[in-house]
Formats: sequence, C-alpha cells, structure tokens
Amino acid sequence: MIIVLKPNATKEQIEHVMEKTKKMGLEPWLSEGVERSIIAVKGEEDALRALPLEAFPGVERVVPILKPYKLASLDYKGEPSEIDIGRGVTIGGKKVVVMAGPCSVENREMILNTAEAVKKAGALVLRGGAFKPRTSPYSFQGLGEEGLKYLAEAGEKTGLLVITELMDVRNIEMFEKYVDIIQIGARNMQNFDLLKEVGKVRKPVVLKRGIANTIKEFLMSAEYILAGGNPDVILCERGIRTFEDFTRFTLDINAIPAIKSVSHLPIIVDPSHGTGRWGMVSAVSLAAIAAGADGLLVEVHPNPEDALSDGDQSLLPETFEDLMRKAARVAEAVGREV
Amino acid sequence: MIIVLKPNATKEQIEHVMEKTKKMGLEPWLSEGVERSIIAVKGEEDALRALPLEAFPGVERVVPILKPYKLASLDYKGEPSEIDIGRGVTIGGKKVVVMAGPCSVENREMILNTAEAVKKAGALVLRGGAFKPRTSPYSFQGLGEEGLKYLAEAGEKTGLLVITELMDVRNIEMFEKYVDIIQIGARNMQNFDLLKEVGKVRKPVVLKRGIANTIKEFLMSAEYILAGGNPDVILCERGIRTFEDFTRFTLDINAIPAIKSVSHLPIIVDPSHGTGRWGMVSAVSLAAIAAGADGLLVEVHPNPEDALSDGDQSLLPETFEDLMRKAARVAEAVGREV
Amino acid sequence: MIIVLKPNATKEQIEHVMEKTKKMGLEPWLSEGVERSIIAVKGEEDALRALPLEAFPGVERVVPILKPYKLASLDYKGEPSEIDIGRGVTIGGKKVVVMAGPCSVENREMILNTAEAVKKAGALVLRGGAFKPRTSPYSFQGLGEEGLKYLAEAGEKTGLLVITELMDVRNIEMFEKYVDIIQIGARNMQNFDLLKEVGKVRKPVVLKRGIANTIKEFLMSAEYILAGGNPDVILCERGIRTFEDFTRFTLDINAIPAIKSVSHLPIIVDPSHGTGRWGMVSAVSLAAIAAGADGLLVEVHPNPEDALSDGDQSLLPETFEDLMRKAARVAEAVGREV
Amino acid sequence: MIIVLKPNATKEQIEHVMEKTKKMGLEPWLSEGVERSIIAVKGEEDALRALPLEAFPGVERVVPILKPYKLASLDYKGEPSEIDIGRGVTIGGKKVVVMAGPCSVENREMILNTAEAVKKAGALVLRGGAFKPRTSPYSFQGLGEEGLKYLAEAGEKTGLLVITELMDVRNIEMFEKYVDIIQIGARNMQNFDLLKEVGKVRKPVVLKRGIANTIKEFLMSAEYILAGGNPDVILCERGIRTFEDFTRFTLDINAIPAIKSVSHLPIIVDPSHGTGRWGMVSAVSLAAIAAGADGLLVEVHPNPEDALSDGDQSLLPETFEDLMRKAARVAEAVGREV
Repeated sequence: MIIVLKPNATKEQIEHVMEKTKKMGLEPWLSEGVERSIIAVKGEEDALRALPLEAFPGVERVVPILKPYKLASLDYKGEPSEIDIGRGVTIGGKKVVVMAGPCSVENREMILNTAEAVKKAGALVLRGGAFKPRTSPYSFQGLGEEGLKYLAEAGEKTGLLVITELMDVRNIEMFEKYVDIIQIGARNMQNFDLLKEVGKVRKPVVLKRGIANTIKEFLMSAEYILAGGNPDVILCERGIRTFEDFTRFTLDINAIPAIKSVSHLPIIVDPSHGTGRWGMVSAVSLAAIAAGADGLLVEVHPNPEDALSDGDQSLLPETFEDLMRKAARVAEAVGREV
Repeated sequence: MIIVLKPNATKEQIEHVMEKTKKMGLEPWLSEGVERSIIAVKGEEDALRALPLEAFPGVERVVPILKPYKLASLDYKGEPSEIDIGRGVTIGGKKVVVMAGPCSVENREMILNTAEAVKKAGALVLRGGAFKPRTSPYSFQGLGEEGLKYLAEAGEKTGLLVITELMDVRNIEMFEKYVDIIQIGARNMQNFDLLKEVGKVRKPVVLKRGIANTIKEFLMSAEYILAGGNPDVILCERGIRTFEDFTRFTLDINAIPAIKSVSHLPIIVDPSHGTGRWGMVSAVSLAAIAAGADGLLVEVHPNPEDALSDGDQSLLPETFEDLMRKAARVAEAVGREV
Repeated sequence: MIIVLKPNATKEQIEHVMEKTKKMGLEPWLSEGVERSIIAVKGEEDALRALPLEAFPGVERVVPILKPYKLASLDYKGEPSEIDIGRGVTIGGKKVVVMAGPCSVENREMILNTAEAVKKAGALVLRGGAFKPRTSPYSFQGLGEEGLKYLAEAGEKTGLLVITELMDVRNIEMFEKYVDIIQIGARNMQNFDLLKEVGKVRKPVVLKRGIANTIKEFLMSAEYILAGGNPDVILCERGIRTFEDFTRFTLDINAIPAIKSVSHLPIIVDPSHGTGRWGMVSAVSLAAIAAGADGLLVEVHPNPEDALSDGDQSLLPETFEDLMRKAARVAEAVGREV
Repeated sequence: MIIVLKPNATKEQIEHVMEKTKKMGLEPWLSEGVERSIIAVKGEEDALRALPLEAFPGVERVVPILKPYKLASLDYKGEPSEIDIGRGVTIGGKKVVVMAGPCSVENREMILNTAEAVKKAGALVLRGGAFKPRTSPYSFQGLGEEGLKYLAEAGEKTGLLVITELMDVRNIEMFEKYVDIIQIGARNMQNFDLLKEVGKVRKPVVLKRGIANTIKEFLMSAEYILAGGNPDVILCERGIRTFEDFTRFTLDINAIPAIKSVSHLPIIVDPSHGTGRWGMVSAVSLAAIAAGADGLLVEVHPNPEDALSDGDQSLLPETFEDLMRKAARVAEAVGREV
C-alpha cells in the first residue's frame, strides 16, 4: 500500500501515520519527494485496508497495491479452472457450454417442449425461472416450487442439466433438491447473506455481475462464495448500465478478456438480458465466443408473443438453432467447440 | 400505451396487434401517419405491459404513457406525506430530521458516547450498523444482535429514535424488537423478497436508492413495500455510480426535486456515503437542505481514525455540531427548521 | 409526435396546445383516457421539435415518434452502403477492412517501417496522427504538416491508403492534399463547425463516436456531414465511458448490430482506444468481426516502449500479424473476409 | 510515480524498467514486497507520463502520485482566485454572480427586453447564444454576428456584462470586439485548438465541463488556457451524463466542494442545462449556492413557449425574480451575497 502525503504534511503527522502502521505489524518506508512524499507499506495489506487512512491529517490519498481478492485470482490458482457441472459436462475447457430456455417456467408443457427444442439444437443446460425478481410488484412472480419440479422433470426427460435463480436464503434446501446449478442474479450480486449461504452448498453457482458493479467487485463477490468453501463459481457477464438507451443494458464484452487476465474462474455471457432485444442476441453471442467466453445463457421461448416475461428478448427455437450453427463456426475459428 | 409501427408494417401485422389488445379488454385506435403509423391503446396499462409487444412483427417500439407505480405517486395521494416515526417526530413536514451516528456499532461504550454527542448537537435519530454489508468477506461484518441491543440501549438513554440496516429476511423479528426505523440498504433496493417482508411490518422503513437505479425503479421498489401494506416509506438518496472517480459516488441532488414532483413520499439524503469524503459532507448536506430534502443521514464517529468501517467519511462530533449550526441557517432560509 | 397531458390538464390548456400545432400546419388528434389523455400529432415532426411543448401548461411530456435523422437512416437508403475509399477498396461490403499504424507519426523512418509491416500483415489502410488531441498541454502534440507529408509518402511507397485525424477547421485544405480518409475524433463528434466543413469535402470521413454520446446522437452527427453533401461517412465505435475502470473505456460491441438495424452506414471498431490495453486488443477485435463490424482501426507500433503516445495500447508488428491470422478465420466463420 | 511489478517479474525486467527511468534523469527506488514489488520514482513526473510503462514486460500498473495540472491547482496559487470580469464585478469573492438570459438571441427586441428584465431582478451578466451548437443540422443555428451586435447593444443599454459561446477558432476576433466573457461549451471542453486560442485572449473565459469528463480532465482543460497565458478561467458545472433519464443530465453538486479542495479557480453552476427542466431550476440553484458555488448561469426567456431553443428549461422573468429572492436568503445563510 502506498500512502501519498499532502505537500504541507507536518513531521508529526507523518510520524503519526508511520506509528499506526507499525503498530499493525507492518513495515512503512518514507520516500521524500520534491512536491509530495509517500510512505510505502510492506506486509499484509488487508489489515491496513480497515484503517481509514484518508481521514488522517496530512494524508492525501491511499493507493492499494495488492488485489483485494485472493481465492478468485489467477495468481492463486496459476491456471484457468475447468469446473465440473455434472453429467460429464465441464465449463472452462474447450467446450463452449450453451444454457438455454425460457425466462420463466410458465407451465409444465411449455418447459418440457422448450427443453426438447433446445436439447435438439445442442444446448447442454436448461434454464428457466421459478422465482422471478420483477421490478413491479404487480408482475408475474413465478410458479415457485411447482416451477422447480417441472424444471427437474424436463431435465430428467431430456438429459439436460438444470439451472435456475435463487433469491431467498430460505429456499436453499428446496433448490438443492431440484437443480443442478444455482444462479445468483445481478440484483443479488452483493446480497452477502445469500452469497454466504451458497458458499456452503455443494452445487456449482453461476454468479451474475451486478449492473453497476466493477470487475473488482464482481470478483470480490465470487470471493465470498469461494471463501465459504464452494470452489465451483462460474461468472456471468449480463450487461452493465450506461447512459446508452438504445439497448436495455450495455453488454460489456471487454469483461471477458479482462477477467481472464486476473482470475481463473470461467466466464459465460447472457446476451438476452445484456441487450434486451432478440434481434441483437445472435450478433452479441458470436462476439462473446470470439472474445473467449466459456458459455452462453440464452433465452428461448416457443412463443415469445405469449411469454409471461421477457418475451422481447427471447429467441424462437428455430432462431436459436440458427444461432447454434453460427456459434459452432465461430467457436471453431477460435479453437473451441460448441 | 402507444405502439409505434414499422414503416413497412403490413395490414395483417397491424390487425394482429389490434386483435391482441382487444382480447385483453383494451381499446386500440389506429392513427395512420405519412412515415409511421401508431396504435394508441386506452385502458389498464398493466395488462399490456406483460405483453412483449416489441417482439411482434411490424412493431417498432412501445411507449408507456402511465407511470408504473401507483401508491407511491403524487397523483394517488394528492399531497406530500408526513410520516410519524415515533416519539412525536414526523418526517416530511417543516422539520428537517437529522439522523446521525457511526457506520458500525463497534462496542457498547462507543455507541453510548456517540448517541450523547449527536443528541447534544440536535440529531433526533441515532444510526449505527449491527449487520454490515461489506464488499470483502474479510472485513468486519458487524456485531449482530449484540449491536442491536447496544443501539436500543443508547436510544433509550438519550431519547433518540434508532435506525439500522436489515439485510436478511430471517432477522425481521429481531429488528422489530430493537429498532424504531428499518433501513433497507442500496444493495438491497431490489431484493424483492426483503421488500415484501418489510411491507408486512408495522415500522417505518428508510429505503435507500440503489447505486445504479433510476428514480422510476426507486419508486417501484417503494411500491413493493406500500403494496405489502406498510404506508410508512421514507426514500433516501445516497449517491449513484457514474464515471467520476473523485468521489466514491455522485450524490444526485436533482433526485430531490425530481421525486417531489412525482411522489408524495419524503426523501432524505446520506451525504456520507454519497461522497465518501468527510471533507465534503457539510457542503453537500447544506445543498440537500436547500434543494428541499426532508432529512439527513450522517455518519459521526468519536474517533474516525479507529473506526472499523467508513472512517474516511465520518465526521467528528465537533464537525457535526458545526454542520448542525449551518444546517439550521440554511433550513431557515428555505422556510424549514432543523 | 405524442403529447401526453397531465391528469388535471384543463380544457383551455388542451385547446391551446392543439391550436399551436394546427398553426404549424400539423394535424392533432385528442384521445381521452381514464387517467391521462394524449394528443397524437401527424405531419412533419421537425417543426414540432422546435416547440418547447413540455413547458406548456397541462403538458406532462412529449414522445417523438420519428427518428430525428433521415439521410443516415436505413429506411432512407433501404440497404447497407458500400463506400469506395480509393484504390479499389470499399468498406461496408464483404471485406473487413483493417486500418493500422501508430498513434502518432513520430518521424519519417518509423512511419515508413510501420507502413511496410502493417502492409505485409494485410492491412489496407495506414493510420497515424499528425495533429494529436492530448489531454495535457504539456504532452507531445504531433508533427503537424510534416507528419502529413511522411504519411503521404508512406502511403505512396506501400500502396496503402492513408487516414489521419483532423481537429482544426483551418487545416482542411492541407488534409485534402495529403490524406485519403479524414478522421474526426471522439472529442470532436459534436464539433458542429468541423462537421459542416467535412460535409463539403470530397473525401470519405471516419466519424468516431463520442465517449458519452448515444447511438442516436452519433447518427445525428453523421447527418451533419451527409446533409452537407458528403455521402461517404464511416462510423467508428471506440469505447464509451462507464463506471468500469479496469479498462480505459468500455468498447460497446452492441453498437454494431444496433447501428446496422437503423442505419445504412458502415461501422468499424477501434479496439486500441476502446480498451486502452494492448493485451485485450485481439480478443475485442475478433469479437467486433463476429458481431458484424466492417473494419478495424488498430494501433501498431514497432517499439511501443518508446512510443510518444499510447504505447500502452499499441501492438507489436508480430502481435498484429497474429491478430490478422485469427481475424481471417473469424471473418470466414461469419461469411466475411479480411 | 509508483510502478507496481507483476508477481513473476524477472530481475532483468525490473532492471530494464529502472534503467529507463534513470535515463530520463529520474531516481527510481525498488521496494521488494512479499507478493508484489514496487518501484517508487522521484522527480519530474511529466517526463515519465509519456513513457508507456504498462506496456513494459514485468509491469502490472503505474500509479501517478502528482496531479497532472499545475497552474490550475490550489497548491500552486495557495488561495482561491477572485477574477475581475469587468465593470467592477469580480467572481470568486463574497458575491455570488448571477448570469441570466435566453438560450439564443432570437431578435433585437427580445434580447433588449430580456436584458432589462434580468437586470431588474439582480443579474450582473447577460447570457445569450449567437452561434448555437445544435445536435441536429436542421435546428436553428443562431443569428451569428448579428446576434453578437444585439447582445453588445443590450449590455451597453443596461450596464450588464455580456457572455456568449464561442465554437469556431475563426470567430475569435469577432468575439473580442463584442463580448465581455467568452464561454467554451461542454462539447468543446476538449477542443484543444480552441482552448489554445482562448489562452491567448485578454478576456475572462467560462469553461463548461464536458458531459463525460472527470474533474481531473476538466482541470486539465483549464490548464490549457492558463498555460496559454490567460489567467482568467471560470469553471462551470452543467451536468454530467449518467444512466438516469428523469433529467436530461445529472447536475454534479459534489463537483463544487471537490474542485474547491484542489483548485483555486472559481466555479459556477448552470442549473438550466444541468436539469433540462424549468421546474427544477430553482431547487438546484439554491443547492449550488449552499454548496459554495461562486455564481449561476440561468436561462430566462420572456416567452418560453415561443423560444427557438431550450424553451423547456427557461424561466419566465417573474419566476427568475422569485429565484433571486430565495437565492439571496440562502447566500446570506452561508455567508455570501447575491
């Protein structure tokens, strides 16, 4: 950690800061410059982070040197992780894993039909919401446990793995019973009590990036789950909020190489929420694969016009099939496969 | 709702859209323009919102006309609400209610001392965190129920009302026992399960704006609580995330007159989190009062250097006293009082 | 245009608004709803845009229906444009045109060497700055006209077309003499006097998106050039400013399919400025091609360590060659060629 | 400057970086840590900024310690500047200077009438645009030199100083003839050729913040003008672009105390463009004064319904008078005067 001092910091103030760091068992070193002096502090930076050094008289600002996450860092692991999500499927390896299905599980029949359609097109995982986070209290909130049962049934019938979103800590046992992969949604990326709970679970977790969270914060939230004891965290970029209003969100394609440069965790992309427009899903999906994404999470609905949620951004099964064909070609061009 | 059609929309497509809206019991009206035609739809807009009209062939975009929130709107109530928060204190009236205290309750002594200091300076409510949402799993997470007890004791001794943040639905009963006002933090503004639970509680709720949430979404979250049966919602602007990195967040002063123009709910401001720098807290607090804020939520710590969290943005008791004197003058200038 | 009225708008206010629009030769139609009434106005929307309708008593808000740009719209042209940029090269067709070279022309030798290197790797256009927009007045500001001469010489020797940035209206004639394509930088996207001037020029213009400008504003700036009489406008996405600080900017990959859905103009991508990190340039370039970009604008420097500007984001010639090989494979996968 | 090394940086790489800095006449010092080593470099940081250190093998990132601006910094001047803008008026002292007038000068009569109205209400400076930066090429572009003449005449008749926006370097002499204060608009904050030209002028300059520019970049643009020889720079906060779409921009009230903490330059606020809604202008103006702004720049139009630009955000003369009365009370509350 580097402590930058004010130009007019007094000797006493500098001494005071150095004393504080020494008391914490750290080793400060003062470098006096012409305009500004700095104190470089060696040792465990975490202890120091808790200290509100910028409130100390004479201190201008503090520059952390070490990354605040450990278990999520590439340095820690040394190489990218390949995570086993069940039925012989791994994520983070050569295979670009496609997860597809409707926004919400609306009834038994539609989820069974959609499961068959996405399976046929080449998806390996079935997605579908049973508990829905809805901006309006007056919108359809999901079928609840009934939806989980239909999902599990569809997974069993088709051989697809099943992923769905967990929002409430009180439902964890129910989820462990029915689903293969637990999804934490963007709105809950910093719901720390929920992160702690899924840290104790023995299921892979797909953690979506919050719409206003930096890559650093994203990795800190992964760290919560990893530190809780669950090593199987898959990151998911799903669009961030910017000033642009043409699309619902701005899918941050840069996050893929950025995260791969600092973390060992696999990263997948949700082009449906990322753009909010079905007409853009294919272009953005191909871009994600070209940029190195380890998977896709795509909304597919047999009849978007009648969808109870997110119909605007869902693909028809035939459009999804077309995307899968194109995705295979782009994946091959970058040495991967779909 | 207005449905804007594509320039090349066919008769069949237009007919199909009109049929759909009629089936929902609504009244569509087609207005053919030179370049674009539109369909204006009269009636209950909520039903229509569920329909993914932008996915219909021939439709370019959909423009909602009505506000998606009802109970939170100024139209609904007709005049600003004045909410009784206990011990004869109301918020939303002439009084600008100041809530102050440390970020975290660190131990019994410090919270008792701080309570006395802020009471002396003129605060009416004591703030202090017992359960802390921390970005890092390695940071101090709060004292938990012990912290709540100390807070309640400090409130009782000083006659201050007590506010603290609730993060976990499983703790609601505990909170009902100890605190006067429940705070929902920015990270949980769209934790809908939590909103539903505080909707059932008989305590006033301070709802903080998410760092990337629009004013409309903010009011939709308030709507969740109101629709649950709890009419006592106080909004709190605490800074939004922008590209500017001089301050931790950008406190959105515009939100005050903006919200007052569309909602009857009181709005207070948190200048400590909003700026992240204690040196800017006073200027921004005075600005908030001048802009019409109904209260302030300020971090005060007897010894910021040793604070276990947010020391950088906490005021010393004497700086807080100075702020209270200035706040009184500005409040008077705009016809309010502190 | 739709004019949404306030719930309590009086008859007189409504009448007044309708009169105003009629005086402008337009045709208003009033639709009375239960909660809100609206006025739909048919006819030339431009005239109406000038009217500050939201300041009229009784008016809540105004919703434009037509796009504010005409010549730049896909509706106007009906199909994507393929723009001839000279020497038989067109942009917007099957070929993904790669433009490459150093940020700044530093001296004659380096630009000649770089030109040969990028030519060998397959670039068709040489980029290089002679007049540099620099945030600091103390940074290297470019070689000026001397730089243009070196660029022209390098173009002639290698058969590459030459592109460079114009910042000052007083230099237009000089640019017409030396360069094949004129670049308007992100900071000048709304320098309307400059846009008007390049509207009169007979050279293709690459217009970069401002870092905080919406796609709509981007197309409005293109409209300035088109309306001035120059039909050869090539758009360039180069990253927008968001809260994320891992990368210098957030390259908006969504802008590619978004713009293609509403405009006929070709769009290229600048992955070097878009990310600000050379290690991410390849991944983002491939993503851009997969998403449908018509070209790339890449910084290549023979010795980034000694670059006078933007060394952090420049590729070495050998890294660039590697990118070109990968780009060829991804382009083929999406039916294009490099 | 601090150079943070990668955990696996080799001795040779470290040596190479140290050599480079020594060759530039600087003094590097290596501090080896457990996880990361750093090099602290003493001396003139500007030279080092040009070096793309992040592209050097073994380097993880570079942390500048010194501020990149000098003449604009508070350290340089030691105390806030009070700038003489003519006719005995200074800005940056006790007086909060109000500048008011229409967005555009539409004709002789309207500017004379408005000048008298704002003078009567207490404004000291008349604003009005003669050359207008308009997003659309089809919008009213201003009266040009004719507008400047009317402005000058109105200034003379009323004794008001006159401010208007300069967009084109070719018009500087014309502006010197007619106006007292030159305004550089937000879109031109980084039009460096224009900044260089007004650096040579002997008139005070109001520099508006770009809608996506940080406070640091804002001060760097001021540095261009100061470095050119013109010491009379007045900063103007006018709203930044964020995700919030309730208001046209988000006026950044925090910028006022932030800038005052690092720069000696006065700062004024434009609440009209900052919010884009006349109904919010008063609240935000009072907030700006309470936060320490040195002046206001307010749009006033005798008949907003017929304004040729920005009618939505213009105050009627009587609303402006009311604002001036309130402003006087708030200014007094914070020890200033209007």
